[in-house]
Amino acid sequence: MSTKKYNKLFTGVSLCCAMFATSFAQAEDKVYRLKLAETWGPNTPILGETTKNMAALADSMSNGRLKITIDSANKHKAPFGVFDMVRAGQYDIGHSASYYWKGKVPNTLYFTTMPFGMTAPEQYGWFYHGEGQDLMNEVYGKFGMYSFPGGNTGVQMGGWFQKEINSLDDVKGLKIRIPGFAGEVWAKLGAKPVNIAPGDLYTALERRTVDAVEWVGPSLDIRMGFHKIAPIYYTGWHEPASELQFMVNKKKFEKLPADLQQILKTAMRTSAYDMYIQTHHESGVSWDSMKKEFPNIQVKSFPTDVIDAMRKVNGELLAERAAKDPLAKRIQESQAEYMRKARAWTEISDKAYLNSISK
Amino acid sequence: MSTKKYNKLFTGVSLCCAMFATSFAQAEDKVYRLKLAETWGPNTPILGETTKNMAALADSMSNGRLKITIDSANKHKAPFGVFDMVRAGQYDIGHSASYYWKGKVPNTLYFTTMPFGMTAPEQYGWFYHGEGQDLMNEVYGKFGMYSFPGGNTGVQMGGWFQKEINSLDDVKGLKIRIPGFAGEVWAKLGAKPVNIAPGDLYTALERRTVDAVEWVGPSLDIRMGFHKIAPIYYTGWHEPASELQFMVNKKKFEKLPADLQQILKTAMRTSAYDMYIQTHHESGVSWDSMKKEFPNIQVKSFPTDVIDAMRKVNGELLAERAAKDPLAKRIQESQAEYMRKARAWTEISDKAYLNSISK
Repeated sequence: MSTKKYNKLFTGVSLCCAMFATSFAQAEDKVYRLKLAETWGPNTPILGETTKNMAALADSMSNGRLKITIDSANKHKAPFGVFDMVRAGQYDIGHSASYYWKGKVPNTLYFTTMPFGMTAPEQYGWFYHGEGQDLMNEVYGKFGMYSFPGGNTGVQMGGWFQKEINSLDDVKGLKIRIPGFAGEVWAKLGAKPVNIAPGDLYTALERRTVDAVEWVGPSLDIRMGFHKIAPIYYTGWHEPASELQFMVNKKKFEKLPADLQQILKTAMRTSAYDMYIQTHHESGVSWDSMKKEFPNIQVKSFPTDVIDAMRKVNGELLAERAAKDPLAKRIQESQAEYMRKARAWTEISDKAYLNSISK
Repeated sequence: MSTKKYNKLFTGVSLCCAMFATSFAQAEDKVYRLKLAETWGPNTPILGETTKNMAALADSMSNGRLKITIDSANKHKAPFGVFDMVRAGQYDIGHSASYYWKGKVPNTLYFTTMPFGMTAPEQYGWFYHGEGQDLMNEVYGKFGMYSFPGGNTGVQMGGWFQKEINSLDDVKGLKIRIPGFAGEVWAKLGAKPVNIAPGDLYTALERRTVDAVEWVGPSLDIRMGFHKIAPIYYTGWHEPASELQFMVNKKKFEKLPADLQQILKTAMRTSAYDMYIQTHHESGVSWDSMKKEFPNIQVKSFPTDVIDAMRKVNGELLAERAAKDPLAKRIQESQAEYMRKARAWTEISDKAYLNSISK
C-alpha cells in the first residue's frame, strides 16, 4: 500500500473510530446527572448520611453513569419547599418526610408514621406487601411525583419532661414543644403545644418556659443536651416508625434507562433500610452514654388513662379526616386492616420474646 | 474519491469498527455468569424467593451483565454441602444458614441467631455497625469465602406442644423435635430432643410419638399443619432473629469488575432486608388465617423458672465453647457487649411502645 493510500485510509479509520466511540459513549456511557434537595441542613447526622449513602451507591453500581448531587437546606434555602421544587422539576429528587406536606396535601400525612400506629417492620410490610406503596403513588402521582420510603428513625420518644404526668389532670395546661398531628392530640387533651425554634429549645426547657420537649430519640436528642436539664424521658406513643421519603419527579425518572431506574430504586430502598438499622445502632450508643453521664434519668410511660384518652382523641381526629375525604378513609382502613394482622403477629413474636426473657 | 479507494477505505473501516466493537463489548458488555447453590428445595416459599429476588435485582441493575443461575437442592443433591461446594469453587455463591456448619467449623454458629440473643434490628446493627461482619469475614475468610447476611425470619416460635409446660418437671422426658444448639439446651434440662424427617413430623405429633415440634413460625408452619393437631403454640426464646447467609467464593467475587461487585453486594443486602419484611408480612397473614380456622389455639410463653433454667444452661454451653477457643470467646463478648447497649434501647423504644399502648 502506498503511503498516500495508507494516509487516506488512516484518516478514514480515525474518523470512523471517533464516530463509533462517540455513539458508544452516548448509548452506553452517557452520564445522567440528577439533583437532590434535602430538607436537612448540611451534614445532618443520620438523615443527611442517608442521602449521601444513596448517591454513593447509585454512583458505584452504575460505574459513574448515575451522578446525584445533593443540595442541603443552606444551599436551596427552602427546607419545606422540597415538595414544590421536585414537583416543578427544579430538583429531580427530594429527601424529606411526607407528613410535612399535610397542610398542602392532607393525605400525605399517612406515609410517615401514625400515633398508635405500625412499627417499622409492620409499616415496611404495608408499603411493600400491603397497599402502602400504591396508595402513596396515588397521592403523589397527582403531582407528577413518586414517593418511596426514605429511611426509618424507629420509635420516637415521648419527650423530655420536667414533671411527672400521673393523670389527665397533669396534662391540662402542660406547655410542650411537639409539632404536627401529635401536637393536635395533646391540645385536645388540654395541653398547650408551643412552637419554638430548635436553637432556643434548650434554654426554654432549662428555664421552664416549657414543661416538656419532644424531639426524636437518643441518637439525635443527645446533641441537643435535654438529658442534662430534664429528669424524665417518656416513652413513645405518637411516632412508632417515622419513615422519611425520597420524592422523585416522574418525568425525570422516566428519562433514565431501565437499568439506571432499577439502580436508583434499589439505592433508595437499601439506604432507607440502612437508616433504620443505623438509627437503632446510634440510639443504643447514645442512650448508653446518656445513662452513664446521668444515671438518674427516669424512663416512664404515660399512665393508662392518659394513653386511653390520647387514643380516643387520635381516633376522633382521624374520623374527621375520613369523613371529609374518601381517599383518607381508604388509606386509614388499609392501615388499620394491615396492622390488625401484623400486630397480632408482633404480639406473639417480638413482644412475647422481649417480655418473656426479661430478667 | 474513486470507487477503488472507497472500497479500500471501507474495508479498513469495517475492520476497525469490528475490532472496536469487540473491544468495547469485552470491556463494557461482557456477561458474567455466576452459579448459586441453595440449601432449599425448588420453589421453597420465602427462602427460595429471596435468591430469585437477588438474582433478578442483579440482572436488571447490571442490564444483563451479571447473570446468576440458581440450583436448588433437587439439582445439586447436597443441601448441606453448600459450604464445601462454594469453598471449592464448584459454585460461586451459596444461600444457606451459617449455623448449619457448626459441626465442621464451630464458630459459624454465631452468625445466624443465638438463644436469648439479639432481635433482627439489633443483629443487623451488630453486622453493619458493630463487629459482626468483620468477625464473620474472619471465620469464613479462612475458607476462601465471604459470608453476608442473607435474609431474616424474625422471631421463631418455641414450637407446637400437645401439653402445657408449667414447671421444669414437665420438661423431664419431653419428646421434642428441635435441632441444633437449642436442642442441646433442651437436652441439658432433661428433655429428649428427637430427629424426625420433615415429612413424618405431622404424623409423629398427631400420634404423640413426639410431645412437641419446633419449626419456624406461622409463615412456614401453616403449610405443615401442626396447628390442626396441637393445642398450644409456645412463644420463642431460642431463635429471635434467624439470619440466612449468602456465601461468596472470594476468587470469583474478585474477578468481577468493581461495579458488578457493588451490584452483587447491594442485591444481596436488599434482598436480605426484604426477606425480613416478607416474613413479618406472611407471618401476620398466616397467623390470622390459623386463628380463624382454629380459634382455640392457645399462645403461651414458658414459665419463668423454665426460662431461667434455659438461660443458665445456654450460658454454660457458651462458656464451654469460649474456654476452648479464643475466637469463640471474642465473638461471644462482641455480641454480649453490642447487645447490652442495643437491648437497653429496644427496652425503652419498641418494647415500651408495644407494652404501654396495649389495650
